[in-house]
Parts: sequence; structure tokens; C-alpha cells
Amino acid sequence: MTVRVRIVTPITTQGFRRPEEVKALGGADITVDCVEVDAGPASIECAFEVALAAPGTIAKVIDAEKHGIDAVVIDCMADPGLVGAREAVAIPVLGAGQTAMHVAAMLGHRFSVVTVLKRLRSQFEQAAATFGLGGKLASVRAIGIPVLDLERDLPATERALVAEAERAVLDDGADTIVFGCTGIMGCAAAVREGLLRRGVDIPVVDPIPTAVSMAAAIARARLSQSKTAYPAPPDKSVVGYTQIGIGIELPTAAE
Amino acid sequence: MTVRVRIVTPITTQGFRRPEEVKALGGADITVDCVEVDAGPASIECAFEVALAAPGTIAKVIDAEKHGIDAVVIDCMADPGLVGAREAVAIPVLGAGQTAMHVAAMLGHRFSVVTVLKRLRSQFEQAAATFGLGGKLASVRAIGIPVLDLERDLPATERALVAEAERAVLDDGADTIVFGCTGIMGCAAAVREGLLRRGVDIPVVDPIPTAVSMAAAIARARLSQSKTAYPAPPDKSVVGYTQIGIGIELPTAAE
Amino acid sequence: MTVRVRIVTPITTQGFRRPEEVKALGGADITVDCVEVDAGPASIECAFEVALAAPGTIAKVIDAEKHGIDAVVIDCMADPGLVGAREAVAIPVLGAGQTAMHVAAMLGHRFSVVTVLKRLRSQFEQAAATFGLGGKLASVRAIGIPVLDLERDLPATERALVAEAERAVLDDGADTIVFGCTGIMGCAAAVREGLLRRGVDIPVVDPIPTAVSMAAAIARARLSQSKTAYPAPPDKSVVGYTQIGIGIELPTAAE
Amino acid sequence: MTVRVRIVTPITTQGFRRPEEVKALGGADITVDCVEVDAGPASIECAFEVALAAPGTIAKVIDAEKHGIDAVVIDCMADPGLVGAREAVAIPVLGAGQTAMHVAAMLGHRFSVVTVLKRLRSQFEQAAATFGLGGKLASVRAIGIPVLDLERDLPATERALVAEAERAVLDDGADTIVFGCTGIMGCAAAVREGLLRRGVDIPVVDPIPTAVSMAAAIARARLSQSKTAYPAPPDKSVVGYTQIGIGIELPTAAE
Amino acid sequence: MTVRVRIVTPITTQGFRRPEEVKALGGADITVDCVEVDAGPASIECAFEVALAAPGTIAKVIDAEKHGIDAVVIDCMADPGLVGAREAVAIPVLGAGQTAMHVAAMLGHRFSVVTVLKRLRSQFEQAAATFGLGGKLASVRAIGIPVLDLERDLPATERALVAEAERAVLDDGADTIVFGCTGIMGCAAAVREGLLRRGVDIPVVDPIPTAVSMAAAIARARLSQSKTAYPAPPDKSVVGYTQIGIGIELPTAAE
Amino acid sequence: MTVRVRIVTPITTQGFRRPEEVKALGGADITVDCVEVDAGPASIECAFEVALAAPGTIAKVIDAEKHGIDAVVIDCMADPGLVGAREAVAIPVLGAGQTAMHVAAMLGHRFSVVTVLKRLRSQFEQAAATFGLGGKLASVRAIGIPVLDLERDLPATERALVAEAERAVLDDGADTIVFGCTGIMGCAAAVREGLLRRGVDIPVVDPIPTAVSMAAAIARARLSQSKTAYPAPPDKSVVGYTQIGIGIELPTAAE
Repeated sequence: MTVRVRIVTPITTQGFRRPEEVKALGGADITVDCVEVDAGPASIECAFEVALAAPGTIAKVIDAEKHGIDAVVIDCMADPGLVGAREAVAIPVLGAGQTAMHVAAMLGHRFSVVTVLKRLRSQFEQAAATFGLGGKLASVRAIGIPVLDLERDLPATERALVAEAERAVLDDGADTIVFGCTGIMGCAAAVREGLLRRGVDIPVVDPIPTAVSMAAAIARARLSQSKTAYPAPPDKSVVGYTQIGIGIELPTAAE
Repeated sequence: MTVRVRIVTPITTQGFRRPEEVKALGGADITVDCVEVDAGPASIECAFEVALAAPGTIAKVIDAEKHGIDAVVIDCMADPGLVGAREAVAIPVLGAGQTAMHVAAMLGHRFSVVTVLKRLRSQFEQAAATFGLGGKLASVRAIGIPVLDLERDLPATERALVAEAERAVLDDGADTIVFGCTGIMGCAAAVREGLLRRGVDIPVVDPIPTAVSMAAAIARARLSQSKTAYPAPPDKSVVGYTQIGIGIELPTAAE
Repeated sequence: MTVRVRIVTPITTQGFRRPEEVKALGGADITVDCVEVDAGPASIECAFEVALAAPGTIAKVIDAEKHGIDAVVIDCMADPGLVGAREAVAIPVLGAGQTAMHVAAMLGHRFSVVTVLKRLRSQFEQAAATFGLGGKLASVRAIGIPVLDLERDLPATERALVAEAERAVLDDGADTIVFGCTGIMGCAAAVREGLLRRGVDIPVVDPIPTAVSMAAAIARARLSQSKTAYPAPPDKSVVGYTQIGIGIELPTAAE
Repeated sequence: MTVRVRIVTPITTQGFRRPEEVKALGGADITVDCVEVDAGPASIECAFEVALAAPGTIAKVIDAEKHGIDAVVIDCMADPGLVGAREAVAIPVLGAGQTAMHVAAMLGHRFSVVTVLKRLRSQFEQAAATFGLGGKLASVRAIGIPVLDLERDLPATERALVAEAERAVLDDGADTIVFGCTGIMGCAAAVREGLLRRGVDIPVVDPIPTAVSMAAAIARARLSQSKTAYPAPPDKSVVGYTQIGIGIELPTAAE
Repeated sequence: MTVRVRIVTPITTQGFRRPEEVKALGGADITVDCVEVDAGPASIECAFEVALAAPGTIAKVIDAEKHGIDAVVIDCMADPGLVGAREAVAIPVLGAGQTAMHVAAMLGHRFSVVTVLKRLRSQFEQAAATFGLGGKLASVRAIGIPVLDLERDLPATERALVAEAERAVLDDGADTIVFGCTGIMGCAAAVREGLLRRGVDIPVVDPIPTAVSMAAAIARARLSQSKTAYPAPPDKSVVGYTQIGIGIELPTAAE
Repeated sequence: MTVRVRIVTPITTQGFRRPEEVKALGGADITVDCVEVDAGPASIECAFEVALAAPGTIAKVIDAEKHGIDAVVIDCMADPGLVGAREAVAIPVLGAGQTAMHVAAMLGHRFSVVTVLKRLRSQFEQAAATFGLGGKLASVRAIGIPVLDLERDLPATERALVAEAERAVLDDGADTIVFGCTGIMGCAAAVREGLLRRGVDIPVVDPIPTAVSMAAAIARARLSQSKTAYPAPPDKSVVGYTQIGIGIELPTAAE
């Protein structure tokens, strides 16, 4: 049985994910594709943008289920719309943030998140605490490069990741690293190599490949989020979201 | 100095708040008004609806600041859009949920939330934990009446509130009650009386009056949310929210 | 309706509070006065002194209720006698410490307490943990100036407050500051200005004005501490406190 | 070397401790005596009474050190004045409550406190949390007999203790019992026997004998409370406690 | 690339795992085999048996690495020898207990463990707390059937699992179920069906298939436990384990 | 009544404990002896070695009970085999680690563990958390000297202990020190003196003398670990441990 996993990228910057890198996340019996949202911010770097990304993300998750997708991964460490999307569908929906942090917690004693901007620190601290992993989070460190600039000078981005990861290990007591932005995807091997050259031997968790593997495994095991934990939303009028596909079937929807 | 407090009601059901009850929340040197959102659900009873309510709520908070309002209260115990709104403006923004739980935590040792539907339990548990008040939350109980039906038979609603509050005290060890839905506003005195008649002497926190008082006190003290905790969002393109007033000034915004 | 709030200053140093600064804490419909205790230490800087301050504080709270006061604020960040006083009366009794820490927890993600002496650190840590706010406390910092010397060189005190607050933000990750001694009252605006000049934009919570506002709001809402949480003490002989007004009505009291 | 342990009973009821039962707590190289306080309540059953008991308790601990006592045990599960007394002297001061809860935490996974009155529940919960043992506390149960009535019908007291201890094990998941009032001293063997007859095999911790043993062991090992944690109080005027021996040496003390 | 996963069953009961059920856990690019330990208990139902199972388990993990296995799963919810094995090898070693609890924590808000014997409750509570998941554990329930009797009357075992799982949901607030013994493997679908027939819609996590999927995904991503968290043991004499393959290469080993 | 305490040293290095230093731990009515294990590592410095030490330790505890010993202390801060041993016998079994950490938690607000190797940090952090003392642990520091080298240059060991203890106080906020290896036994007075000379006045807990005193006090009070918490293991075949005395009476045991 082949499992179909869809990545929902909750931003509106066209071409953020290259088709070939998405396809390469699949395997012998997993196919992976990717969609972006129709409404939302160009990138996600604060709670304001998380809030604007959530409705479009949920719309794309609903759409994925309608088209026979087996599992969805939300492509942002802030997990925008995760809980609402889990309510809205029956297929498993995984957040890159929640999944990567749980996996990191299994690989060591304390992990650090290395992210783009310092302002995201408290967001990761609260997310970790909500997942029960507050005590496993050694630190949140930032490289000071905005999401949309990460690939502008990739070697510089990788050097900054290595430098902050090393400080996380030496200064903060981390023994595992999680990338704190899915835009960094693909650098894990290079960062791990860079750290090894400095004598630091730790796993580097790349959230999207990790979450795709987990999503496929969960779907294959015929598991999904608990519908007792995430029951379907009540049938109710919603105003203003028909353009992105929410509310379109509700008789009283208006705009 | 008169403080102007605005209540943002994050749903699209017209007439949910009566002008006279809103005005009565003011005082000698506080004026209070109320607006509803332009996009969002008819009422809020799950995370899916919280996600759909947030963008419109943030838009109205931004609008309030533009019009010289001194402080805003978000009129839903789920605090939709609270963090994003705090980033977006400089005036103090309070959530009914966060404020009421902190006040309850000051009045006793353990509080229970009495809300509308059982499915909201984990939302309150997670919110309390995020605020640091997880250990103060005795239980979440529900009366089984949807938000939009609360006023259909008000005496029945009040009887149900008294019954669940009494069980919270006797079975769960609560010593303080918080209403878990702002739609119950105005019943606190009746519920406290009903409990006293059964020999239960506990405070009953009505979230909106409490949050309005707190918001006015914070504004009067020239305090507000920390801009170090809630820095302004980056200047960035946002797609799809021009109709509700977000993104309109960004040159690359499109729809 | 005018709310009468009384500040009970739990020390025996005459003239610690100036009548005009106390009166200025009131407003359109709030009047504020202040009393000192008859027995206790000259100032409070350790647990030994907290213990000696508590009986006199409770006596003054009982006295306030007898004289028709609507709400009481205990004027020390250690909240001496708070729980016992809440048992002894029906009117709301607020501690400056508990109230200020809850308000700080609402304004940001993590607050630091800037207090007088380093030895008070564990007292604040334990208090924050008891309130549920242990995870919100970034640090406790001290300026190294005893309570009774705070006003000796006020500009120096303010400079020290700014310096420690800045370190709390930069080194400890705080985004909100709470004064850790009510003797510092009145400096919040100056300290906030000083921090802004150094590029640090954070709220500075002045505990007594904050607690007075909260006490008035709670009294106006006809709330008070839960008598299920703080039931009245049993009727019982007490020896040795008749001079400060406790035990005077108990037939078996002796000295 | 013989270790001299003094029990300070923080109430003013004469004859609460019988000399022979106190002496029997000693051994080959431990002598034990007991004093009551000069000021305070007849018994301790609430926070109001804890506050009134603390100054007299501290005075007696200071006095014990002056008279060459090697270690002191405060004879109340609420540990009145414990922290202040630890600051005031160099000899080890143990609280019955703190010591018994730590020992219980070493003997099993979860302990229940069986105390006199239900109103003490939150006091024990907060104390356990402060000691770090909140997660080890299965429940607080009460037999509904006031302190001064415990010996009125001793078999009834023991039956009530057995009944509540059994419920703690069967209903609350406790595997160890701590008496929640030092007035119950001497019943542990009988209660353990009563539980064994009902098929419940659990240790029953009698706080005063346990704390006396611990105090002697700590003194013999030349340990004491950390003076870094509990530094001596500042030299300062104290008003109103000369009668119970506090403040008498301070030049500015007045009454 | 095919990933080779080995299951180490840490007991000495021959034939506990049937080759065909082990092989069926593999897939298109995963092969799975299974070995039992040479020394240890017949089954694991207490900490005494966990201690006796650990050395043999570690020996088999070392052996697996020597034979080119890519990842190991320890086949017991108590994770015997997990930490020591992770130190001893470089290939990823997963415990059924840790992995299943993390997956359950991702599928809902609160999970219950349904295990064989009531005496295992505190073991699961402590393990969950160590993983950071203490707050996600709704309850531990037991069916009262020893490990080696689980297959004696499989329909009875499944009925008992359904009954306890249902009580976990209705009485304890669980929304996800984890089997608390790997001996129950293969019943998840039947138990989920049984629960659905009673109107309870929750995921049922079968630990071994889940851990095998996770182990393969981790190995495929070239991740493993952090060697900073789990550094190799010092080179040192070990007495008494040569028969099970530990210590054989150490020059000073003796027996 | 004389209490007989046995120290079980869970390593196979002959002569690690000198008979005279063991005997000196006794007193007027306590006799102390010591045995080493028959199988296990030369010393314990990682989880791998803890696992190999546990079966032999449990065997010696069972043996101690058979020979009329009143209480056992396991002579390693990692408490190898503690829980299994407590299940296997009725006499009290104390771990040096658990006991020393509880005593340290009673003497101050926050303790630091000063141990041999840095790699042990997470072991102590997890142990402290399991005991409920995670919030009391200021830090784990290491002197970088392996267990078997501690006495090679005792003055150097003591200097290193003083240096790390001082940093724990000044940098980590500790107010109490616990030795993190029982091999350091006997240095507490010298380390405390060394710290006092640097102006640091804190208690230094030497785990073995502390645990021996506690074990004697517990045995004398006729207390022991709860058999409800630590019930006897099921009667069951065990393979491979007959040489160290486990399994010898089980009919199906084989090797």
C-alpha cells in the first residue's frame, strides 16, 4: 500500500518549496506533494502571522482529505491551525513543530531549537510546555536571518546554524538540535558535519522529513488524531472565508 | 482622566451584546463600547472556530487603537487572536480568559471553569497551563448548552450553572468559580446566590466585567503588554485579508 | 459608589508612607488611606521579620473591616499575614506581592523582580511558585540598598533599579519588571524612562498602585477571597496579643 | 557524644506534651525535652493561628540555642516560624511537617496526610509543593476531630485514622501515610496494626519521633540548615515582642 | 535502501514472539527480526525483573550492532536496559514504552496506559514523568492478567482491554489508549473496534509496530540517540557477564 | 536495641571500602558492615554500569535480609537496583542518592551535586526529578576525576571539590552541596572548611554517613519501604543469575 502525504505550506510566497525536493521526501511506498495556502502572510515570524496563516491552512487540510490524501504535514514550526485542522478532518494531521520536538526528546535528554529570529523564543517555549516537553528544552537560539533570506547565502546560513548549535551544546547543555524553521530544510547533514568537525557529536533533526516519515507511519498503522480529543466542529454559520473554501457549504454563510 | 475601553466580540452573530449592558460596565471615569468582527464564526465552541475568529479580532483591535481607544478586551474565554493582537498594537489588550483565570487564582486556592460544552475542557486546561495556572485549575465542567442558546431559557441556564458549580466545589475541590463563556455575562450574582442557598460560599468570577476593570486599571497606570514580549510584526506582504482591514497598507498585498 | 481601600503597612517605622502620596492613589470613586502596625520590625528584609510583622498586620486588617473599609492592601512584597488575614475577615485582602506578580504575568512572558537585598531571592521564588507563577519568573535581582535607605539618595536608587532591570532583560530573558519592595513606590515612571533611554521597552509594575486598583475593582465587583478557601478561624483562646487587638474578646485570653 | 534535642510546642495549652512521652523519644545518646510557647493560640488549625504561633516559636528556638541545645524540632505539622527560626539561630531547626513529608516520600511513591480538619487541605498541598513533593502527595484527608479533642476518646481517634488511611490507599492511590497533626503522636503502631487487619500493608509515619531522629542525626553529623539559604536577620529595631524575648537586646526596641 | 530492524525481547520464555508476526512488521524496505535474551526473567512484571532483564538486553543490542543491524527496538514497555544500551552502541535503540507514549501524546491530549497488572502503575507514572509526559498521562489501568497468560484466552483478554479502555475514557478523561505490555501485540484493531461498538472513538497505540516504524524512520533519516547524551561507557573491567557477551573483550574482566 | 546496618557496595573493586572507616559509621547502638557485589563493574560512572551493577546489588540485599540485617544502604549515588531490591525484601533499603538529595533539600533552598564526571549530569537531573526534587537542584558539577582515581591524590580531589562547590554557590545559586559519588566519603569536613576559608558558609552532605543514620533511624522506628509501593516480585523462573544467588530456589531456573 502506498501512503500519500501532503505538505501544506502555510504561506503565500510562490515557489517556496521546489517540487523535486518535496518528491524526494517520498520513498518506496510513500508519495509526497505540497501546496501553499491561498490567504496568509508571505512568511511566518510572529504570532500575528500565525493567526493569519491558520484559516488558509485549515482550508488546505480539508481540501487534502477531500482529494484522498492519507496524511498531512503542516509546514511551519509554529504549527498554524494544527488543532483546528485536526478537528476538521479525520486523516492524521501533524505539525512540524510538535513532531520534531517529540522526536528530539526521544533522541537525547535536552534539545535546543535553532531558529531564524530571537523574537520566536517564547513561542517555542510555550509550545514545548504545551507538548509536555518544557523540561526537555535547553534553549531557543536564533541566527538572525529572516525566513525569506535563508537561501540567499546558504553557506552563511549553514555557518550560522553550526555556530548557534555549538553554543547551544556548550553553553546551554543541549545534546540534540532541532531546526526552528522549516525553511532551513535540507541543511541537517551539513550542519551535523560542521558540528562534528568542531568535536560536537549530536543529532540534528530536520523537521519536515521527520514529520513526513511520522505521518506516513501513523497513516500506515491506521492511526490518526483522537476524535475524542479533536471532535468535529459544530455545524455553524461562518462569515468571510468562502474565498478560501471554508463555509461554502453552510447555508447561512455570508460575505 | 476618562479611560475608553472597547470590547471586541469575536463572532459574527449580530446583537450578541446589548448596548445597554455594555455601557453599564463603565463607571465614573470609564466608558465602554463594543464591536463585533466582520469575518468569523457565529459563535466559538472549538479550536477550528477560534482560528477563524482570530484574524477578524486582530483587525478590530488595530482599528480600536487607530480610533484612540485606551484598552481592549477580547470577548471570548478562548482569547482568540490575543497574542497576535498584542503584537499589532501598543494599547493594552486583555483576554477575558487569561484575566479571569488570574483573578480567580488570586481569590482562592483552586478554581473551576464552568463552561458551555464538555469539548472545551482541554482548551481550558492548556490555557491555564500556559498562564502558569494549571495547578490552580480544579476542573472544567460544562452545562451542555451551546453559546447561542444560553439566553433561550435563562433560568434554566442559571440552574445548570449552579448545579455544575456546586459539583465543582463538592467533588473537585474548587473554592472559586469562573464562567467559561463570556456569553453567560450577567449571571454571576444569581449563581452566587443560588450557591449560597445550598450552603456553598464561593466567589463567582464574571469574566467580562472583571477584564474591563483590569483593562481600565492597567491603562490608567500607563501600563500595557510588554513590547519586548510582543514586538510589532515585521513589515511584510499579507494576502487575503484586505476586506477586514489587514494588509491594506502593504504594497505587495494581493487578493 | 465610592470604594474605601486601606493600605496596611506592616512595619513600625513612623512616617514611612506620606499621607499625600497615599491619597493620590485614589480616584474619582476610590478613597485610600494607610495605617502602620503597632508591633513588628522597623522594616521587612527576611523571613524572621515577616513572622514578626504578621500578627500586627492581621490585627490592622481586622480593625479595617470593623471600621467599614471595603478592601485592604498589605504593603509589603512578602505579603506578611496575608492568608491569616483573609481567614479573619470577609472584605477582600490583597497582598502587594501576589497581585503584582499576577499582573506582571499578564503583561509579558517572563518577569523579573528587582528588590532591595539579594537574600530575598528564595522568598520570591517560593512565592511565585506558590502562586503558580514559578515558570514566569525570569530572575530576582537586588540593588543592594536596604529598605530604610531607599529614599536617602533617590536618584542613586533609581539608577540602580534601571541597571538591574536592564540586566534582567538582557541576561535573564525578562520582558517585564516588578519592583520587589513596596518602599520603591513612585519610581516606576522614572525607571521605565531610564530603560527606554537604553533601548529597553518593557512595563515596570509598581506594586502598591497596582494592588490598590485591583482591590478597588474586586470590591466594586462585590468579589472577595473565597471563604471556602479561607474559612474563619475557630473560636479559640489566644495568649499574648491583646495589646495589638487580637484575642481581646476571647474569655480565656491571658497575658 | 550525647545530642540534646528540644521540641518546641508552638501552642499555649499547658500539659499538651507529657514529660514521660517526650523523654521516651530519646535513646542511648540522645536526650529530648520540650517547651511550650509563651504567646500564641491554644492549638493550631488554620493560617491565622500559624501566624500567631510563629513569633513565640522563634523566641523559644533562640532560647534553646542560648542554653546549649543541639537541635530543635518544631512540634506542629504547619511548621510555624520554621524559616524565621532557621535564620535566627545556627543550630539545626527541623519542622515536623517538612521532615515527615520527606521521609514519607522516601518510603513509597505517593503518601497521604491524614489530619484533623478538612480546612487544612490546601495548607498541606502548598507545603508539599514548596518542598518539591507536590507530585508525591496523593491526598489530604481529615478525621474531623479538633486537635484538643484527639485524646478525649483515643480509640475513636484511632478508628477514624484507620478508616481515613484505608480510604487514602484504596481511593486516592496512597502507599504511605503521614499523620497530619503532631497531636496524634503515639498512634502509629496502632493505626498500622488496624490497617494490616484490613489487608493494607503500608508504613505510617509519626512526625515527631521521625523528626527527633532526623534532628539528632543531622546534629551528630555536624550539619545544619544552610546559612547561605537562611542568613541571620539584619540588626534592627523590633517593637512589641520584648515580653517573649525578641528584641530585648536591640537598643531602639520600644513598646 | 532497506532498513534492518531487530526486536530484542528481554525475557527468557522461548517462543514468545512468532517469526511470522515479527516478519509481518516489515514492509517494502524494512526487514524485521527478533531475538530473546540469554539471561533474565521469564516475563517482566516488576522492577526486580526489569533489573534482571537489563544486562542480557544490553548484550543483545551490542550483538545486533556487531551484526550490521540498523536499529533496535526493546520489546517491553518498561524499556529495560534502554539507557545503558544507548550508551553501548551507535545505532538507534528505541524503547517500546518511551516511543509509544510519545506517539500517544501526539495523537490526543491525554492518554491512558492499559497494562497487565495493577502493580505496574507507578512504573508507568515515573516513566511518563521522566519523558516529560506526566501531564499527558490520564491513568494507568490493568486487566489483571499476567503476561504469560495473555494468549491463554485471547477473546477474554480483548474484552478486558476494551472494558478498561472504556473506563479510562469515561472515568479518567483519556482520549488515547496505549497498550501497557508488548505481549498484547496484535490486538489494537480488535480493541479499537470493540470501543467503537460502544461509541468510543479513540486511537489505540500498539507499541511494537509503532516503535518499529519509528526506528526505521529514524535510521533512514540517519539519526540516532545523541552520543552527547549517551556517551560510550568508559573502558573498564566488568565481572560476571562474560557468559552473555559483556566484558569478554576487556582485558581485566574476570569471573 | 542495637540496629545492624549493612552497606552494599555495588562494584567489584576489592578493598574499595576500608573496614575501619565502615565501622566508624556506627555508634552507641548502631553497627555497620559492608559487602561488595559478586558481579558488576569495577566502578559506576554511566547507565551501562548501573545496569550491570543492579542484579548483584539486589542479590546482596536479599542475602542481608536472610542474615538478620536490619537495614541496607546501597553505596552509590546512582542507587543501582534500589527499586528492585525494595521489592525483594521487607527490611528498609535506602539509596545513597535518594537519601542525600532529600536531606540536602531539607537543609537549604537549592542544592548542587558535585560529582566525578560531567557525563553523570543528566542521571542526577532525572533522579532528582523522580524524587520530586528537580526544582531544588541548582546544578550538577564535576571535578573530572574518575571514581577509582579519587584517592590517588586526595588533597587534589579536595581542592577540586572546593573549587566546584564554590562555583555552584556563586554561579548556580546553590546553598547546599551534596557529594555526587560515594567514593568521596570522608571529605565533607575538609571541603566545608575549605569553603569557609573562602567565605562560603554552606552544609556539605556526605551521602553514606547520612544514609546510614537515616537507615538506622527508620529501622529503629520500625518503618520500612511501603510494600504497597514495592510489592514482592511474582514467583517466576529466572535464567542466568544462580551464580550470584538469584533464582536458585526457582524450580525452572536454568543456565
